[in-house]
Amino acid sequence: MKAAYYQGQRQFRVGEGQAVAPGPGEVRLEVAFCGVCGTDVHIYHGVMDRRVAIPQVIGHEAAGRIAELGPGVTGFQLGDRVAVRPLKPGEPAPVDNGYTHIGKNLKFIGIDTPGAMQASWTVPAYTLHRLPDSLPLDHAALIEPLAVACHDVRLARVQAGENAVVIGGGPIGLLIALVARELGAKVLVSEVNAKRLELAAGFGLATVNPSTENLVEAVARFSQDAMADVVFEVSGTAAGVEAMTQLPRIRGRIVMVAIHSQRQPVDLFQFFWRELQLIGVRVYEAEDFDEAIRLAASGRLPLERIITRIAPLDDVQQVFQEIDENPAGMKYLLQCGKEPLSR
Amino acid sequence: MKAAYYQGQRQFRVGEGQAVAPGPGEVRLEVAFCGVCGTDVHIYHGVMDRRVAIPQVIGHEAAGRIAELGPGVTGFQLGDRVAVRPLKPGEPAPVDNGYTHIGKNLKFIGIDTPGAMQASWTVPAYTLHRLPDSLPLDHAALIEPLAVACHDVRLARVQAGENAVVIGGGPIGLLIALVARELGAKVLVSEVNAKRLELAAGFGLATVNPSTENLVEAVARFSQDAMADVVFEVSGTAAGVEAMTQLPRIRGRIVMVAIHSQRQPVDLFQFFWRELQLIGVRVYEAEDFDEAIRLAASGRLPLERIITRIAPLDDVQQVFQEIDENPAGMKYLLQCGKEPLSR
Repeated sequence: MKAAYYQGQRQFRVGEGQAVAPGPGEVRLEVAFCGVCGTDVHIYHGVMDRRVAIPQVIGHEAAGRIAELGPGVTGFQLGDRVAVRPLKPGEPAPVDNGYTHIGKNLKFIGIDTPGAMQASWTVPAYTLHRLPDSLPLDHAALIEPLAVACHDVRLARVQAGENAVVIGGGPIGLLIALVARELGAKVLVSEVNAKRLELAAGFGLATVNPSTENLVEAVARFSQDAMADVVFEVSGTAAGVEAMTQLPRIRGRIVMVAIHSQRQPVDLFQFFWRELQLIGVRVYEAEDFDEAIRLAASGRLPLERIITRIAPLDDVQQVFQEIDENPAGMKYLLQCGKEPLSR
Repeated sequence: MKAAYYQGQRQFRVGEGQAVAPGPGEVRLEVAFCGVCGTDVHIYHGVMDRRVAIPQVIGHEAAGRIAELGPGVTGFQLGDRVAVRPLKPGEPAPVDNGYTHIGKNLKFIGIDTPGAMQASWTVPAYTLHRLPDSLPLDHAALIEPLAVACHDVRLARVQAGENAVVIGGGPIGLLIALVARELGAKVLVSEVNAKRLELAAGFGLATVNPSTENLVEAVARFSQDAMADVVFEVSGTAAGVEAMTQLPRIRGRIVMVAIHSQRQPVDLFQFFWRELQLIGVRVYEAEDFDEAIRLAASGRLPLERIITRIAPLDDVQQVFQEIDENPAGMKYLLQCGKEPLSR
């Protein structure tokens, strides 16, 4: 069976992989589609070489069908269509505080262990979420990033009627905007890339380009001077960090979605002065996957238009190069098996 | 009647003031004692000269007796012993989000309007909280900072059994530690000043000096590797901001009590990685004053030992100088009227 191996040095090799027979509590999937995550791009850039075991199959945004059941697996049948929640909680630790989805000994499947950019993938059965028949498997490859958005919006405690500002209109930013809108929030997306702005506007979202407009004034206008109940910082930029404390109203919430690997100057005075809250968010819990599947299956989200391109696994090298060269791109999927496209 | 006027340039003048007859909804108090707040020291240092109306009577941590009732004031009688919640909400604004205690048009009595460092002080009746007979008025001058601590601990959502770390063992830090302990938290105070550490230890609080011990290791030992459920940053230092993200457990809370007037580098990655929360807190709401009065009257808090010195109003200049020269000092009170000391 076919597998794509990250080799280091921005190189993938597509070759013959070995299907892994499922052990107790595991299942083997035929992978249909696997999305490319920003984290996969980080791996491709070499910044996570200490964490991955080169050569390694990566990828964790996958949907597929159950091809083999390991001993003791109940509740699933061969052929079941599933999405994978790629988290393997380790031994509980006191510091975990009961939050196993980000526990100290967590392994992230597809980063710390082999991933889904291959035709056959063996994972623990507890990672599986069954998909409704109405949800095509290419769309279902978006369940994982959509679950991120559902998690972020849930922890943000978004309420109907609230004003939400999303700083950064990439795939996660737009999914957050769409999920928040489903909950009844009024959403404004701040993004500097014209193509991404166009896409967001095409979804009926309000948009602002902070490189050509005053963002604080735009949020004041958008909210009729109430300012933002909640701000999602998804840009990962210093400008985003500076803006995030300027936009909320009193007791407003800021949700830290982006991964800031460098310390950033933060206007902590504003946290004091307006009793702001900063809420850190990471990955998802099981209920976020359930909600993502429900939303995706509802047909209310423009998932089709978030998919920039679906390419065969053989083209993996070219896909990663294209992602680097196309800042307007959104979601790229790899077709890993024989499953046809839904369109 | 006697009044202390801040003159600018680190100078006070004690002179004759004019008692102000209470207007509709106002009362005139005979001030018994007025505490010196860190904000008063900032004013003395000249950094708030644009906000105060020099020469101005400052001070807002006061307790006294009602001497005169303005038209329409009900529910109070002459001679009632009261503490003052020195907040004057202005016109509600959309950005307020209903939080009038920190609303856009809030005036802080004693900063934006005349304060309590005088024998007679006229304030709106809605600022008053009646005091139980068992609570001496010198202790009652601590109700305002104690209400700050009650507010901070309430917004921190401190639960019995939780591990709490207080970074900074000044008056507010120690009051936070004491209030959190009353709620059943296990509290560790981090402070660099030996005298303050000694005071905290004398209250039965666990202490650590981060200039001589590794703070992260100390918190791990204190919490048996669970780390902190909640961290209060009260130090206002860059070291405190760096420590605050290292000490919490997963989904732990950080409470921003200190006023950081400069942007500080913050390890935002930790907010993502461990889903930390930062909770900004400022002043208090009415219920925090009620709780502070209840706690102070319970006799369970060592308020007597938090008072470093009680000086006559005539000594105001010397008191501010002494505060600057004594980093180990805690609470200084000015005796503004004829009320005798409780000790």
